[in-house]
Amino acid sequence: MSSAMLAEIHEIPEVVRLLRDDGADETARVAAAIRAARPRVIVIAARGTSDHAAVYARYLLESHLRLPVVLAADSLVTIYRRSMAWDGALVIGISQSGEGPDVAAVLSAARHDGALTVAITNEPESALAGVAEHTLLCRAGVERAVAATKTYVAELAVVAALVADLTLPDASGAAEDLSAAMVALPDVLARVVAASDAWLERDDSLVEALAASDRALVVSRGYDYATALEVALKLKETSRIFADGYSAADLLHGPLALAGPAIPTLVFRPDGRMGAAIDASIDRAREIGARPWIVGGRELARLAAGPRSIVLPVDLPEALTPLAFALPGQLVAESVARRRGMDPDAPPGLTKVTRTL
Amino acid sequence: MSSAMLAEIHEIPEVVRLLRDDGADETARVAAAIRAARPRVIVIAARGTSDHAAVYARYLLESHLRLPVVLAADSLVTIYRRSMAWDGALVIGISQSGEGPDVAAVLSAARHDGALTVAITNEPESALAGVAEHTLLCRAGVERAVAATKTYVAELAVVAALVADLTLPDASGAAEDLSAAMVALPDVLARVVAASDAWLERDDSLVEALAASDRALVVSRGYDYATALEVALKLKETSRIFADGYSAADLLHGPLALAGPAIPTLVFRPDGRMGAAIDASIDRAREIGARPWIVGGRELARLAAGPRSIVLPVDLPEALTPLAFALPGQLVAESVARRRGMDPDAPPGLTKVTRTL
Repeated sequence: MSSAMLAEIHEIPEVVRLLRDDGADETARVAAAIRAARPRVIVIAARGTSDHAAVYARYLLESHLRLPVVLAADSLVTIYRRSMAWDGALVIGISQSGEGPDVAAVLSAARHDGALTVAITNEPESALAGVAEHTLLCRAGVERAVAATKTYVAELAVVAALVADLTLPDASGAAEDLSAAMVALPDVLARVVAASDAWLERDDSLVEALAASDRALVVSRGYDYATALEVALKLKETSRIFADGYSAADLLHGPLALAGPAIPTLVFRPDGRMGAAIDASIDRAREIGARPWIVGGRELARLAAGPRSIVLPVDLPEALTPLAFALPGQLVAESVARRRGMDPDAPPGLTKVTRTL
Repeated sequence: MSSAMLAEIHEIPEVVRLLRDDGADETARVAAAIRAARPRVIVIAARGTSDHAAVYARYLLESHLRLPVVLAADSLVTIYRRSMAWDGALVIGISQSGEGPDVAAVLSAARHDGALTVAITNEPESALAGVAEHTLLCRAGVERAVAATKTYVAELAVVAALVADLTLPDASGAAEDLSAAMVALPDVLARVVAASDAWLERDDSLVEALAASDRALVVSRGYDYATALEVALKLKETSRIFADGYSAADLLHGPLALAGPAIPTLVFRPDGRMGAAIDASIDRAREIGARPWIVGGRELARLAAGPRSIVLPVDLPEALTPLAFALPGQLVAESVARRRGMDPDAPPGLTKVTRTL
């Protein structure tokens, strides 16, 4: 049995290639508008999977532009009806469908207040694109599965391309890394999908453990905190597993009590500074019996590797690893759903467009 | 069997009374310093339970001061070592122990950058109090249980008192409500504890259902989003239940797939605008079989009440309801832990002071 979700995950490298080639002018135009507006603060409104793209955007924007980034509390606008004084802010709305009334309401209020508004969406004719001054399109094509996969990675790619453009004038080392890596990104993602498929073909121990459990922990940190949240959400949506996504630091402030030998634990470990920080938390989880599966890159290959270390060809600066790690995470969720006899394309109780206020 | 956790929950009304009476001068002094500094943005750093106090502070500050509020990504400072341009910001660190190196590092970097720094902590001699320019004490006395209860509500009370002071000059209706309600708060909390005890004495159906389950959903929204997160964390820490705390809006963007007749679901429903918004999400959960317990106030008594509607004397403006709803939530977690044969004072793998970077 195959699923639309599986097919759409495999489309991701080409979606990102299309974005890189066809979206470049649009990104450059919006980046120029942002540079001209000189925002003092950035606000991002989003829900669900797109909210995890917002979490990624927050780390990337804050670290590369040195501006404070607020993840909007939509209800302050939509329910409590507070006026938010967004003059001089850059307000970004992210939604694959562009039809969430709450995200559109936040952008509408912000534009009225004098903010520079940017929509990131897969739907050029959506309500969100209609209210925003500028739109960056995901160009991911139709997504049939309810669980968003290619639109999620496309949202991340739009954000990364925008930040790469915005940081170019500084000519700082970090920004150049980002731009250069964006060029190679589609090929890297194609290799990561192939390696992930090969892993899951060779070793179904993680899928088996998740399919047999109603609970799971997904852990990462920093740029990949978004990965932990998003892969956990995919497991919830497609497989009805109480999968909790944590930053490796937050895990130690209480949720560690949940860990143990019976709880499947999946870690995404980027190479670099954050990898070492994540290792420290994983050691604490191991002390109380956790036996985590760890997905990582070159460094992981050098560390004591066992059957639960999954080394993937993630040859990217850490700031771009969330685009790569999403792929094995999504593939695992899709496999687990089928193993549990569920239809990954049609999770119970969910619809493709969610309208919340 | 009694626990330190149970005793400490019962101390909360007196802790808040002490804060109101003995902390007023300190709050007024810090409020004056903040007013003089005219911050353009507010950043809050915290972990674990204190991070939920930060979520509350974020809604309260943003709605009452109309300033953007950022929940700090500590790792940008502690791991990625980015400089954050915090000149002109108000940076608040919240930690009951004051010993988390990450939160102290954020405040230290912020103070170096020229931010106005405020520590909210129960420990006047802590590292956090040492690095911050100003300190607001929780005055909660020694907390023996590892799961924070009285220090959490004290943190919320410190935040509420500060915001009440900061909004006084506007003489807006909302601010006056807050100040007046703060006066009556200790008595309201005493009545809520008594009513919660009486409920749990009379009806153990929720405790029974949670104790028999490894999974649970805790739902609220707006100011009480913090309540959902914190009560879920208490169930994780004390009872090893995968309890997921959601905003009633976020619930519909995926996690709704988890709901159903077998999953104990606990809703905190404040009176007012948000109550109606929460009802709409609960209806969606009921459609797929959820049979939630709902904790609320006067409005809940008027709605179709059944045995799973728990009406408490929460006579507070909605912005202060998180201080009251925390109490039944904490009492439930304590009862569930004991019902599961666990020691609520000493959760597995956790210690009172968590040192993450």
